[in-house]
Amino acid sequence: MFNIRTDLAVEAKEICEKRMGSKIPGVEIEEKMEEDIKVTYVKIVEDVGEKFMGKPKGSYITIDMPEFTHYDGEMRDKVSVVMGKVLSGMINIEGSMTAMVVGLGNWNITPDALGPKTASKLMVTRHLKELVPDKIDEGIRPVCVISPGVLGITGIETGEIIKGVVDKIKPNIIVCIDALASRKMDRVNTTIQIGNTGISPGSGIGNKRMELSEKTLGIPVIAIGVPTVVDAATMANDTIDLVLDEMINQSEKGKEFYKVLKSIDKDEKQKMIKEILEPYGENIMVTPKDVDLVIDSISKIIANGINIALQPALDLNDINTFLN
Amino acid sequence: MFNIRTDLAVEAKEICEKRMGSKIPGVEIEEKMEEDIKVTYVKIVEDVGEKFMGKPKGSYITIDMPEFTHYDGEMRDKVSVVMGKVLSGMINIEGSMTAMVVGLGNWNITPDALGPKTASKLMVTRHLKELVPDKIDEGIRPVCVISPGVLGITGIETGEIIKGVVDKIKPNIIVCIDALASRKMDRVNTTIQIGNTGISPGSGIGNKRMELSEKTLGIPVIAIGVPTVVDAATMANDTIDLVLDEMINQSEKGKEFYKVLKSIDKDEKQKMIKEILEPYGENIMVTPKDVDLVIDSISKIIANGINIALQPALDLNDINTFLN
Amino acid sequence: MFNIRTDLAVEAKEICEKRMGSKIPGVEIEEKMEEDIKVTYVKIVEDVGEKFMGKPKGSYITIDMPEFTHYDGEMRDKVSVVMGKVLSGMINIEGSMTAMVVGLGNWNITPDALGPKTASKLMVTRHLKELVPDKIDEGIRPVCVISPGVLGITGIETGEIIKGVVDKIKPNIIVCIDALASRKMDRVNTTIQIGNTGISPGSGIGNKRMELSEKTLGIPVIAIGVPTVVDAATMANDTIDLVLDEMINQSEKGKEFYKVLKSIDKDEKQKMIKEILEPYGENIMVTPKDVDLVIDSISKIIANGINIALQPALDLNDINTFLN
Amino acid sequence: MFNIRTDLAVEAKEICEKRMGSKIPGVEIEEKMEEDIKVTYVKIVEDVGEKFMGKPKGSYITIDMPEFTHYDGEMRDKVSVVMGKVLSGMINIEGSMTAMVVGLGNWNITPDALGPKTASKLMVTRHLKELVPDKIDEGIRPVCVISPGVLGITGIETGEIIKGVVDKIKPNIIVCIDALASRKMDRVNTTIQIGNTGISPGSGIGNKRMELSEKTLGIPVIAIGVPTVVDAATMANDTIDLVLDEMINQSEKGKEFYKVLKSIDKDEKQKMIKEILEPYGENIMVTPKDVDLVIDSISKIIANGINIALQPALDLNDINTFLN
Repeated sequence: MFNIRTDLAVEAKEICEKRMGSKIPGVEIEEKMEEDIKVTYVKIVEDVGEKFMGKPKGSYITIDMPEFTHYDGEMRDKVSVVMGKVLSGMINIEGSMTAMVVGLGNWNITPDALGPKTASKLMVTRHLKELVPDKIDEGIRPVCVISPGVLGITGIETGEIIKGVVDKIKPNIIVCIDALASRKMDRVNTTIQIGNTGISPGSGIGNKRMELSEKTLGIPVIAIGVPTVVDAATMANDTIDLVLDEMINQSEKGKEFYKVLKSIDKDEKQKMIKEILEPYGENIMVTPKDVDLVIDSISKIIANGINIALQPALDLNDINTFLN
Repeated sequence: MFNIRTDLAVEAKEICEKRMGSKIPGVEIEEKMEEDIKVTYVKIVEDVGEKFMGKPKGSYITIDMPEFTHYDGEMRDKVSVVMGKVLSGMINIEGSMTAMVVGLGNWNITPDALGPKTASKLMVTRHLKELVPDKIDEGIRPVCVISPGVLGITGIETGEIIKGVVDKIKPNIIVCIDALASRKMDRVNTTIQIGNTGISPGSGIGNKRMELSEKTLGIPVIAIGVPTVVDAATMANDTIDLVLDEMINQSEKGKEFYKVLKSIDKDEKQKMIKEILEPYGENIMVTPKDVDLVIDSISKIIANGINIALQPALDLNDINTFLN
Repeated sequence: MFNIRTDLAVEAKEICEKRMGSKIPGVEIEEKMEEDIKVTYVKIVEDVGEKFMGKPKGSYITIDMPEFTHYDGEMRDKVSVVMGKVLSGMINIEGSMTAMVVGLGNWNITPDALGPKTASKLMVTRHLKELVPDKIDEGIRPVCVISPGVLGITGIETGEIIKGVVDKIKPNIIVCIDALASRKMDRVNTTIQIGNTGISPGSGIGNKRMELSEKTLGIPVIAIGVPTVVDAATMANDTIDLVLDEMINQSEKGKEFYKVLKSIDKDEKQKMIKEILEPYGENIMVTPKDVDLVIDSISKIIANGINIALQPALDLNDINTFLN
Repeated sequence: MFNIRTDLAVEAKEICEKRMGSKIPGVEIEEKMEEDIKVTYVKIVEDVGEKFMGKPKGSYITIDMPEFTHYDGEMRDKVSVVMGKVLSGMINIEGSMTAMVVGLGNWNITPDALGPKTASKLMVTRHLKELVPDKIDEGIRPVCVISPGVLGITGIETGEIIKGVVDKIKPNIIVCIDALASRKMDRVNTTIQIGNTGISPGSGIGNKRMELSEKTLGIPVIAIGVPTVVDAATMANDTIDLVLDEMINQSEKGKEFYKVLKSIDKDEKQKMIKEILEPYGENIMVTPKDVDLVIDSISKIIANGINIALQPALDLNDINTFLN
């Protein structure tokens, strides 16, 4: 069994398949195109799949945003619609039941602020249903939103704040948004993962310390994640691997150099990189330069996707009118 | 009994005294200078005082910030120290007991963002006491902080969020910070009120709808408020009063004009102003142009005052070192 | 001749007409509806009109944004299209000639930041025409943009910075955007004025000190202005006038009270208000509470209107694709 | 002669010395401690030094900020004072002569916003000397400030804007602030370089395209630079070198593996890394996670250092009082 450390099921799947050279047992995979947008369904159905993938049993759906999505308003709306469809497939509660959306992450660190930013763009209706029920269409679902911050800002475990509020207002479902770390630069800001197994400890940019799931909160927890950074050590490691692979390719098979390259201990190498980057390690990140603009774009896409999924009686125009 | 609508006890007192032409029964008032800073103690001790003042029995202490405080770093520190002293006089719990600070208000409206801004500058220690107790001095009090937002942003009553978190983490005292509305331009951004009776419904800029007090939350609630706006209708009304007073002063006593001016019905006049401003009413505010800079300055003063009061084992230097 | 102090030609017109009880000589006025949006053309054609209106000869076109424009994306686009049409009627240079757009105002004061905010949303093309001419469609006009700040931020007269850059890069036309002060709350954030006579000293929120016009800069200067604040003294004064008028209406004609009210010296009254508000005077403003949101909306409308007018070969879709 | 591409003279020096194994001809180097802060003076005095170092003849002074400077207000002031002293040694004009400070870089990209951020914290006096000369102490130097933006924002070469304004207002000296890229993570946000040779094309984060120097602007140009990012390709390359060096160290001298490692062509390797990172290349950066906080801290340090150097008649207290 390998030890794969990634927040993305689709990445875990790729690594697994590469190492095994075959399909992963206990995992069902399906790829579809929805309006030219690639959607990958990873379903971990058996215990063995859980072990291989390093993730709990459940559904993990990945949406690949086409290139230039963040620079194309129409494409943004298209991705929102596809995401809304995928998400609504996971929301199995009645239209009159309350949803609570939680924007996880640290609003002071741009690539970790995806959750709070998305939260600020949602259609909030729970109070209107209570205060002015006559003015609000019956088909509107009560939705409330919080951004609990992170431990270093509040001094309180994120999970404790959420649990406290959930116990008080008793929503019927939770939808979390979280910024993730990817192993690969080309997944950063291009991939949306939607899963129905909640958030595990240790995941996300800020390394969440508490599980957020049906088990801990008593109601279904859907997690929406987007990788917004690459860990610097991971990037260095992967780059070196690519360089070594290239050198192996180019050297003559059987020759001493080839053997030497082949014999490099991957774990040893990774340890070395870790030691070199250690002094900055926890504290450095690799992001695109236009990270502010891109996080803004993703938060719009996801907010609209959530709005569409939570308010099946409305279309994107209704939602925009409501929001503005 | 008059109907006085103001968040500031010191303003209620001035209006009361002016109308009565005498001291207010059931209310004790004392003025002191602390390091050249005027501190006014208003203590409502009897039911009759409660009725006259329109505020619950308890202590209301007002600090007048000297002119140019917001443009003078040293004076800012001086006000923080005086405020810290006043506040610590109200905090009657042991040094090891947990305080929760709550930044009330809407972070998207600059003059209402005082609470959240202050919250972001506090010394947060509760998690450190739990995670790395060896590294944290024994004398440090556990402090946690939340900014619950407002109803329109979250869809949840502010009081519900606070109650939910309080029930979960069980702090021993709450300190709230809130932006207020003043009747007078010259109190705006110059007055700090500290009270031990919590927050009443209808107070603050955003018109809080739920009481935050020992009665509703089960632990002492100290409220720190600073007027950061003047209501436009109030300002128009007060200006007209001043103009009318001036005209009365200048007209000959006993003459027809004098009588006419004297006969103007103040309620009628106020009603007229309200009607004129109605269409914009709820939505307009009067602020200084440099409101961003000033709110930043006040939030620093109050954050440091709170830090001083909550951490009696530390001085301002220790606190600054900790914070940065 | 009266002394009218307002940045808006349409306001000057209203005051003039009210006082004169007749049409203003030397001024042509026309009102049109364009897609349900009211557009008022004020043309000062003779010297006598210049004197009555307190503004130089030229065209001043006013667009009234319908209610809720800032909360309705479609209406926003509609206003942009109407504005683009009006503006393009004033731009009499060839499509290949360079336009320089200038965002006037102080980016640190939200209601004065309209110019710089609009500037940040424009289609900037001048450098592309020079660097990658092959990739840029021939029909694209070279556009450059600056936000020169204000005297207190730079220590340099805004006009000097503009003149310096104009002398160096030699554009063929200038389009300025500026936040204005209105006399009336109901013009605030609802009116766009477009004029072809440049900017006069003393206008705008920050009281510009230098004329920006064809005379001073050597090229045509089109000014786009939106009132975003009401001066507090003006508001107090106008409110008092309304109250007095109401009292006059309600009192019996010919009676002493009526005479007294009629005899109140308007100048005297205004002087009194000024004295009362003096201590805060220069430094306070009256704005809607959601000023951040509204300024953001207006800056989008105007930026798109300018983009449409400057790039006649493109439609709003092309522009949005280019911008994102 | 090697081809060294770095903005920092002290980095160029280190690389040169390492490759040559000796001192660099035509370059004088001196290290001093000023109040426990390391200051390195690199003086390129001859043509040969210019060629080795890849930088024009002149003085390049580097200040190493001690660890935790950004979390320690007192240390920040200490660095400002040392920087002020170093900078004032380069400013050879009379106290009454005008200085223009230029904040280079893109305000929308946090680590590139150092220049504009610093510019916003400077003591701006030029207009006061002109408008209210009586109120301004004679010893105050006229200082003005601009942040010209970048080509993509304005459509105008930064150098053209600066040249235009310089020609118009005729300052006697220019001080530029610019964010740089470093080859090493441990220089990022810890090193201040002050040089008297202006800014070369191709330097900085945004790759300036025009020289800013006495030659192009006609007045002395002092450049203050701080590395705020590491180029991702550089980091990957340097990490691989360290890994290879470590492998060489650990393998037996003379053996085949050793020879193979020694034979790896560094240029070839660098080319490979470039190709791998190409698709993201220009657009990714490596920064600390708390980049917002750190840039804020550095901008304060540099602004105060400049204020001290430009206003020799004032101390830090006077400056703070003036600024607030």
